[in-house]
Amino acid sequence: MADLLIQNADVLQVEAERAELLSGHDIIVSGNRISAIESSGATDPSHAATVLDAAGQVAMPGFINTHAHVPMVLWRGLGEDVNIESWFNDIIWHLEANLEPEDVYWGMQLGVLEMIEAGITAVSDHYWHMEYAARAVEKAGTRALLGQAMFGAKGLGQIDETAAFAQRWDGAAGGRIRTILAPHAPYTCDDEFLRASAVKAEAIGSGIHIHVAETLGQTQASLQRRGQTPIEVLHDCGILNVPTILAHALGATPGDLEILADLSAPVGIAHCPKTYAKLAMGFNNLVELRALGIAVGLGTDGAVSNNTLDLWEAIRLTAMGQKQLLGDAEQLTIPQALALATRESARVYGQADELGDLAVGKLADIILVDLSGTHHFPLNSVTASLVYNARAGDVRTVICDGQIIMREREHLTLSKGEIVANIMPRMERLRRRENAGNIQTYQP
Amino acid sequence: MADLLIQNADVLQVEAERAELLSGHDIIVSGNRISAIESSGATDPSHAATVLDAAGQVAMPGFINTHAHVPMVLWRGLGEDVNIESWFNDIIWHLEANLEPEDVYWGMQLGVLEMIEAGITAVSDHYWHMEYAARAVEKAGTRALLGQAMFGAKGLGQIDETAAFAQRWDGAAGGRIRTILAPHAPYTCDDEFLRASAVKAEAIGSGIHIHVAETLGQTQASLQRRGQTPIEVLHDCGILNVPTILAHALGATPGDLEILADLSAPVGIAHCPKTYAKLAMGFNNLVELRALGIAVGLGTDGAVSNNTLDLWEAIRLTAMGQKQLLGDAEQLTIPQALALATRESARVYGQADELGDLAVGKLADIILVDLSGTHHFPLNSVTASLVYNARAGDVRTVICDGQIIMREREHLTLSKGEIVANIMPRMERLRRRENAGNIQTYQP
Repeated sequence: MADLLIQNADVLQVEAERAELLSGHDIIVSGNRISAIESSGATDPSHAATVLDAAGQVAMPGFINTHAHVPMVLWRGLGEDVNIESWFNDIIWHLEANLEPEDVYWGMQLGVLEMIEAGITAVSDHYWHMEYAARAVEKAGTRALLGQAMFGAKGLGQIDETAAFAQRWDGAAGGRIRTILAPHAPYTCDDEFLRASAVKAEAIGSGIHIHVAETLGQTQASLQRRGQTPIEVLHDCGILNVPTILAHALGATPGDLEILADLSAPVGIAHCPKTYAKLAMGFNNLVELRALGIAVGLGTDGAVSNNTLDLWEAIRLTAMGQKQLLGDAEQLTIPQALALATRESARVYGQADELGDLAVGKLADIILVDLSGTHHFPLNSVTASLVYNARAGDVRTVICDGQIIMREREHLTLSKGEIVANIMPRMERLRRRENAGNIQTYQP
Repeated sequence: MADLLIQNADVLQVEAERAELLSGHDIIVSGNRISAIESSGATDPSHAATVLDAAGQVAMPGFINTHAHVPMVLWRGLGEDVNIESWFNDIIWHLEANLEPEDVYWGMQLGVLEMIEAGITAVSDHYWHMEYAARAVEKAGTRALLGQAMFGAKGLGQIDETAAFAQRWDGAAGGRIRTILAPHAPYTCDDEFLRASAVKAEAIGSGIHIHVAETLGQTQASLQRRGQTPIEVLHDCGILNVPTILAHALGATPGDLEILADLSAPVGIAHCPKTYAKLAMGFNNLVELRALGIAVGLGTDGAVSNNTLDLWEAIRLTAMGQKQLLGDAEQLTIPQALALATRESARVYGQADELGDLAVGKLADIILVDLSGTHHFPLNSVTASLVYNARAGDVRTVICDGQIIMREREHLTLSKGEIVANIMPRMERLRRRENAGNIQTYQP
């Protein structure tokens, strides 16, 4: 007896340079894993506890958001048309001074709700009060890799505290929740702090999720101040000896890329193109990163820079951004873009063997996407439509860890009404900037 | 007695550097024009023939698509990951050899259907068999500025033919349809042809819609071949003496911009950022164009380069593209982006006095946008949400020329079922590339 039978889907199969569809196939889920993908009709529907008819829909892996600060959705729209210094110093770090633990619980639910609606089933999140975020993810039925943010100025004691959180929650919710250590950045954590974080990560078998070289300006400032690039600093401090997610690395030098290409630990880069464009940060050259074998995944960053938590936007902006950057429309092809959004994001997320691919034995994180909208017709190329036409609203059904969490756009785990009702009374306090403190200063 | 009362809307008001909302206002439409905008409740609903409740929705001007080849939606997804030379010579101009007049009738209906769903009420379209496009627009209830494309190689006789079309249809459908002459580009029409087009346009009181300096490469090729930029060529040939829509002008030189800034005729540029990014064409510096007072409107170009006919994408890519291009996130602000999408697009479209602004006396082209989706919540900034979060699916109701053409996403003028049924049998023929001719060669 199968737990779930998805009938008549067009199943997307993505490899590094190839993306194609298995048309008219059924996917069988047993427990939280895919147990078969077979021609439609091979399994009698009466042998499955739940049956979904996906005729005319594409089944693809749930999106993995490799870098976010999900609860920041609470402040979306409040950081507009400013450069990065002002964005941090005049806006974000004042707003975050207002944050209370329960805000994270509701903000996380809200952001996960938006991500489910966009087909995102897993997120690598870097934020505060992550115990509360974990409870929200537990409820939502999605997957998350949670890191409690740390600023060096708050002292070394944080490392033990966040490691305790990490150990408490790693593997929770039937394995849907994993944890990671999350020092903020080399410009907010000194070398001693970074070294101690690396030692702790190794000791508890955790990885590290950190911002680095967010702009070329940060790299230049670091070189001027101490003669080392931010990535060299991480390397020297031992951070890159453990599995690491590097947020952005836009300011990576050729020497930095050599360091990254030669590492033995799995280290990947989270690429968040909407935030980069909005904050005029530039783009990294993903074609070069790919050629060096460096893993690159897609991310949304927080919604105060990105406005939405939507990887359909990210996949499109990634492909288009590379074409513009390199002045060559043949670069970052449709199959490559789909590989970044699926397999490569799973690699950065640290579950390449289990996620990012619809195949027997993989975890059943599956989204069903309806391409019958006018904006897809005529459907001359399904893969082109997925990269350049699809919108969050085309995602009909979302399955995570074998459970249906959104069915025909109806949420089965979270309640939007409850989330909205709990957030509304918080907003007046959360939006205050006058008289609020400033949790940190941006001065890389 | 009013014809239409839109109740309880938040009415978007946009000026060059300011965008704000009149909250809780009613819009009254008499005939095809806005006759009042007043605080909600001032007019008794029983005094209106039709009443729409827009509580919680933003009312804004229908989008104006200043440059498109709408019927090309038939081939969407067939021109991927190639540069512009190959895009024209290996794909487009072969596919277009398959085109029959009735294809344009159905392709235009399909594209207009997609545009209505995205809140686009007017399009400046440059294509073939425009008599058929005009009939589609007449049926759809939208607005269009139609130009029958001309290649110089087909001879001067075309000018009289397309002028006859222009005269026959100008002002048709109660003024919803206007016409324009449409020589393709200076690299496909020689000077004699351009001069004759300008003379004819002046004689019949028409404007001109033409591609020019689509890339910097085209400008360089023209300089090398004849010592003049493409825009200088248009100027010398008299094209810029009549109202003109310049598609793209990405390769405009500083000297070209001086020419454009000094013109007495209204000449504007159509900016199509998704196509530019996908074809790696670069971006123009809109901040510079704005400073020179040159009108810039948003466009989608055709769907074989742009994939969708969606100006929500264009407004976002325009703002983000300028920030990236200039390395300054303070550039191309939210109010400026909204001005480009409304007033400035109306200026390029040639109806600045009648469209692009919700005000008494203007034509009633109004869209109602629902910002209650999860991706907008909390709605800290409506204007930020319109630029960075809104999607075509958020458009609920579309009014053009005072008539409701989509109501709560139900089409009232076009039938998607009929359009799909008529297009499907055409696709095998339309997709052929082998043995098809090549209507032109790209060799600027």
